[in-house]
Amino acid sequence: MVAFGGNALLRAGEKGTFEEQMRNVETTCAQLVHLLRRGYGIVIAHGNGPQVGNGLLRQEAGKQVYGLEAMPMDFCGAETQGSIAYMIETALERVLRREGIDRPVVSLVTRVEVAPDDPGFRNPTKPVGPYYPSNPGVCMGGENFTTQSHFTRENALGWQKNDHLRTPWTGIAVYKEDPAGRGWRKVVASPVPVRIENIDLVERLAREGYIVITAGGGGIPVVREEDGCRGVEAVIDKDLASALAATSMKADEFYILTDVPKVYVNFRKPGEKALDAVSVAEARRYLAEGQFAEGSMAPKVRAGISFAESGGECVITEASQLSNPACGTRILP
Amino acid sequence: MVAFGGNALLRAGEKGTFEEQMRNVETTCAQLVHLLRRGYGIVIAHGNGPQVGNGLLRQEAGKQVYGLEAMPMDFCGAETQGSIAYMIETALERVLRREGIDRPVVSLVTRVEVAPDDPGFRNPTKPVGPYYPSNPGVCMGGENFTTQSHFTRENALGWQKNDHLRTPWTGIAVYKEDPAGRGWRKVVASPVPVRIENIDLVERLAREGYIVITAGGGGIPVVREEDGCRGVEAVIDKDLASALAATSMKADEFYILTDVPKVYVNFRKPGEKALDAVSVAEARRYLAEGQFAEGSMAPKVRAGISFAESGGECVITEASQLSNPACGTRILP
Repeated sequence: MVAFGGNALLRAGEKGTFEEQMRNVETTCAQLVHLLRRGYGIVIAHGNGPQVGNGLLRQEAGKQVYGLEAMPMDFCGAETQGSIAYMIETALERVLRREGIDRPVVSLVTRVEVAPDDPGFRNPTKPVGPYYPSNPGVCMGGENFTTQSHFTRENALGWQKNDHLRTPWTGIAVYKEDPAGRGWRKVVASPVPVRIENIDLVERLAREGYIVITAGGGGIPVVREEDGCRGVEAVIDKDLASALAATSMKADEFYILTDVPKVYVNFRKPGEKALDAVSVAEARRYLAEGQFAEGSMAPKVRAGISFAESGGECVITEASQLSNPACGTRILP
Repeated sequence: MVAFGGNALLRAGEKGTFEEQMRNVETTCAQLVHLLRRGYGIVIAHGNGPQVGNGLLRQEAGKQVYGLEAMPMDFCGAETQGSIAYMIETALERVLRREGIDRPVVSLVTRVEVAPDDPGFRNPTKPVGPYYPSNPGVCMGGENFTTQSHFTRENALGWQKNDHLRTPWTGIAVYKEDPAGRGWRKVVASPVPVRIENIDLVERLAREGYIVITAGGGGIPVVREEDGCRGVEAVIDKDLASALAATSMKADEFYILTDVPKVYVNFRKPGEKALDAVSVAEARRYLAEGQFAEGSMAPKVRAGISFAESGGECVITEASQLSNPACGTRILP
């Protein structure tokens, strides 16, 4: 099981054009060759924080400019599954062809069940969309954005009215400051994944040799009701969804790809130390000490712990390290 | 093989909210129960004309209002595969549960290969997005739209510049009048599908009992190059893609669901006649006579002919007729 981080597609300092994203994802896919050559079956999941946030803004803008109906967050998440899977499978196929590896690729649209009473609905934590230089809950502007921005609290509320009809939402748009100092971002509910649609089929296809893309953006969040599923406006953490997928499939290894080669304690502070391998108990202790930033490394470590507890080995690293079988930080069962 | 028409989700006179679309698609899915009870394995494809056109407008609006990078048409098509499959499988699951039918549903993101020299790239025919009361290539306004519309020829050109980098495009936005008199619509290139990704897997899953959703919006159009596939900005006709899927899988029957119970000759003219069953030769003759509107019934009849030629039986009808095994217009091999 491999979870692609946000930087697999969008990178700091780029505009995020389609061509840039395709190039970035091809670079990431090229590193998977090391895993394929070691004989792994591979299942890929990916994040969608920037993309689903942009999708929400496009819904808002389309309503404002063209009078189009704005679609809810679960719909936008489903859109990102289609578009990101398309980019990954196209890039991956180019890599496979170049390397002379004959493996079919298949991408599934994947709903993921969450609990309707998940406390995440009352405490939005998942950052989505662009960074803002100041809290847009109060005002909006700045160089990262168009100078004549129409972004106002009112626009945000337009969204939340819609949200409010469908989910136990807090009722107002919430922004939080990025712990790495990159600015402010909208945060949305991020309930814990409890069941991944068609995971038995994903496992079977992966064991047959398919490279399977699934649970994109953490999956489209749904709650189970008596007469079926209902979408809810939230974004599931893709590392937690990937950990659940890896555990459900009894995967041998779970790779979380991010933009640092290893996990650090005392990150950017005196006594900074890269971790090579940690036990579940050690990882838990570091988490309790607050060593890992929420919305960044903390959910990855939690995902790694959850998988290691089921008996597997989790590796947190950057894609460029995959050529080294001893790469990254390992969380051991 | 069942191809869902546009009205499976969006209906005239509605605003097209998420809730309306979910209700509509559930109504359509409820009719599939008649096919399921007759023991069919089912593969579903769907159109995306209104949705991909709205997606393009949202890309344009997101650029204008929020400075977001506008993504190309193939990306927007991939988005609609995610979002529409999500709606169909959620609605279908509710229907299955209500009817006590235990069948798994799986949705694939599907690229479809087209020929790079397809003449469709030089003659846009596929209508997408909203209807305009007049040709927006010249001016824009009217009751179907926001009163302060920003839609101008320049905006359309913003798109086409992007298109131009990636495909053999004509260079300007083209609008055509709807043959049914509903107004003007943007038309885009619609090359003929030549190969459907993973169709062998789709067939296998359908024969195992899965209800499979694939080739949404006719598939994400790609051309094959030496080093892999490249997306192209176009929208493949979903009926032609469905016919190709049905033929590739050796489907027994191919249902094209639309908003009329049968195909007519002399439609809305003296001598109007509903067709019960036609041979391939008869269907060809009617087509040559111009009996069927382009962008409407003509591609459905062509899709039916293409499937019937491979030995299967095509039924063109509306979903509400499926309870009658003798419904619709049949194109016979």
